[in-house]
Amino acid sequence: MSWSSQEVRLAERPRGRPDASTWEIATTEVPEPGPGELVVRVDLLSLDPAMRGWLNDVRSYIPPVGIGEVMRAFATGEVVASQHEDFAVGDPVSGSFGVREHALSDGKGVTRLDLDVAPPATWLGALGMPGMTAWFGLQDVGRVRPGDTVLVSAAAGAVGSVVAQIAKAKGCRVIGVAGGPDKVAWLRDLGLDEVIDRREGDLVRQVRRAAPDGIDVYFDNVGGELLDAALANLARGARVVICGAISSYNESSLPEGPRRYMSLLVFRATMQGFVVFDYEDRYAEGVAGICELIAADRLVATETVLEGGVAGFPDALLGLFDGVNTGKLLLKV
Amino acid sequence: MSWSSQEVRLAERPRGRPDASTWEIATTEVPEPGPGELVVRVDLLSLDPAMRGWLNDVRSYIPPVGIGEVMRAFATGEVVASQHEDFAVGDPVSGSFGVREHALSDGKGVTRLDLDVAPPATWLGALGMPGMTAWFGLQDVGRVRPGDTVLVSAAAGAVGSVVAQIAKAKGCRVIGVAGGPDKVAWLRDLGLDEVIDRREGDLVRQVRRAAPDGIDVYFDNVGGELLDAALANLARGARVVICGAISSYNESSLPEGPRRYMSLLVFRATMQGFVVFDYEDRYAEGVAGICELIAADRLVATETVLEGGVAGFPDALLGLFDGVNTGKLLLKV
Repeated sequence: MSWSSQEVRLAERPRGRPDASTWEIATTEVPEPGPGELVVRVDLLSLDPAMRGWLNDVRSYIPPVGIGEVMRAFATGEVVASQHEDFAVGDPVSGSFGVREHALSDGKGVTRLDLDVAPPATWLGALGMPGMTAWFGLQDVGRVRPGDTVLVSAAAGAVGSVVAQIAKAKGCRVIGVAGGPDKVAWLRDLGLDEVIDRREGDLVRQVRRAAPDGIDVYFDNVGGELLDAALANLARGARVVICGAISSYNESSLPEGPRRYMSLLVFRATMQGFVVFDYEDRYAEGVAGICELIAADRLVATETVLEGGVAGFPDALLGLFDGVNTGKLLLKV
Repeated sequence: MSWSSQEVRLAERPRGRPDASTWEIATTEVPEPGPGELVVRVDLLSLDPAMRGWLNDVRSYIPPVGIGEVMRAFATGEVVASQHEDFAVGDPVSGSFGVREHALSDGKGVTRLDLDVAPPATWLGALGMPGMTAWFGLQDVGRVRPGDTVLVSAAAGAVGSVVAQIAKAKGCRVIGVAGGPDKVAWLRDLGLDEVIDRREGDLVRQVRRAAPDGIDVYFDNVGGELLDAALANLARGARVVICGAISSYNESSLPEGPRRYMSLLVFRATMQGFVVFDYEDRYAEGVAGICELIAADRLVATETVLEGGVAGFPDALLGLFDGVNTGKLLLKV
C-alpha cells in the first residue's frame, strides 16, 4: 500500500515577497513505512513568520530549505501506518512534517498529542512553538517581574497573544500593539491595559502616552518603526526581547537598523535575541505552565484556521504577513 | 583675594560638529572660598567623547550643559584655598571642575589624589573615568571569561586601550580596531593578538579573518559600520557592550542603526548599554584592579597631553573626534 500525497516544494528562492514562482506543487507516492518508521496523515499545517527566513540561503539558526525540497512546516496529523515502537495507527501526533498530505517519518521530533488536554490546533499554537516562544522569551529572556510595564508587538498574533496574557497573569501592566480596529477590540476583550493601533501612526507618541513611565520589557516580534518607538520609551534597566522582525522578512535587502539603539546606553538596557529551539528540553515546563493558565481562565488559546489544503499554502503564508490571523494561523489540509 | 580665571562656556548648541560659534571664552574672578568650600587651580582637563552628548538638549543619563554655562569637564588640579575640612591647600585633587582655570567647589565629587600611586594624568585616564568604564564595562557588562575572543573598537583610545589590556590579562584573545598605521603598530606593541586598521575598509571581512570562530565580547565605543561588522561575526551567546558611538556623535541627525541587529537572535546574543557613573560606589575596586595590572607590567597607562590652556579646548575636543590621541587625551591648562 502507498499514499498519494500532494506537497509544496521550494522551486526558487524569493527575493522579497514570495510569489507563484517560489513554489512548485507536486504529487508523490508515500510508501509503506519500513522498520522504525511511521506514516502520518497531515491534518493541520502551522504557518509561522520564521518560514520566510528558512527560504533564504544564509547562515542562520537552522539551515535553509533546499531548492526542490518540500517546504518545512510544523503540523499535526494522525498515524496511518507504523513500524515504530513508540507510535500506533490512530495516534494523534505533531512534528515537522512539511507542507504535504502524508509524511514518512523516523519518529524524530514527533510527539504524541494528548487531546484530553487540548485539540490539535492548540498544540500548534499556545501549547506549540509559539506558546513556548512566548513562555521562555518573556520569562527567561525578558526576566519579567510583577508590576513591570510590558509592551508586546503583533499582540494579536500567535506569539504576541500568549505573551500578553502570560504577562497579565504575572501581574504586569500590558500594552499591546496590533493593526486595525478588530484586533484592537479583540485585545481589549482579552484584558490588556492599553492597546495601540499601529495603523494610526506616530508610534513614539502612542507608546509614550500608553507608558509615560517607560517600558520595562519590550517583546519584539516585528522590528522596524515600532522597535525604535519602544527604544525611545524604555524605563531604566529595560529588557528588549528580540523574537522576530516580521516587518522586514519580505524585504529584498537588509532593512535599516534600530536608529535609537543608543537608548540601550541611556536607559542601561539590554537587547537580547533568542531561538525557542534552545529551550526544547524545558517544553514540558512551558506546556504545564500554559495549561495551568488556560485551566484558570487566565489564557485563551486562539487560532485562525484557513481552508484550502496543501495547495493553499502559498496564499496562506502571504496571509500571515498581511495579518489575516487572530492568534495562531493554521491551514487545514 | 580672588583668582582671575579664563573659562569656556557653551554659547550655542552645535548642530553636527562644534565650531567657533559653539563656544564663548570669557574671564571671571573666582572669589575666596566660603565655609565648606575650596578653590582648585585646574592643571589638566580631560577630553571625553561623551562631552559631545552633553551639548545636546535631549533627555539622557545626565542633564545637558546649559547655554551660557561653563563646559562640564573632569580635571585634576591643586587646592589653592580651602575652608573645607577634607581638603587642605596643596592637595592634588580630581573632580568635575569644568573648562576653567580656577574652580570654586563645595567638595562634592572631589577626590584627593595619591600621587605615589600614579601621576594626575593617569588619574584622569586608566585610573579615572575611562579606566573605570573599561573595568566595569568589560567585566560586569561584557561578562568576559578566559579564552573569550574580544573585539575592541577605538582600541588605541582612552577606554579601548585599557579594555584591550585587561582582556589580555584575563586570558582572552584580543582583536583591536584602530585608525592608521601608527596606532596599529602601537597596539601590536601592547601585545594584542590581532589589530585591524579600520581605514583599510571591508570591516566585515577583516573581522571575519581575525575571528574566524566568532566574537564572544564586542566592546563598542564607535557604533556605525564596525558595529555591523561585529554583529555579522558574533559567536553564539556573544555579549555586545554598548559604551559609546563616537562615529556618530557629530551627526546632525540620528544616524542609521545597526542593520544586522537580528544577528542577536541568530547568535542568541545580548547587546547591553551602560553608564560608568552607576558603578561609582565600586570605583575603589576598579582602581585597585588596574593598579595591580600596572604594577605587574600587564597594563600600560598612556596619555596624549595637548598644550594650549583653557582657550585651546575647542580645538582639543575636535582632535578627539579626529583621533589625534593615543590613550587618554588631556589638555594642559
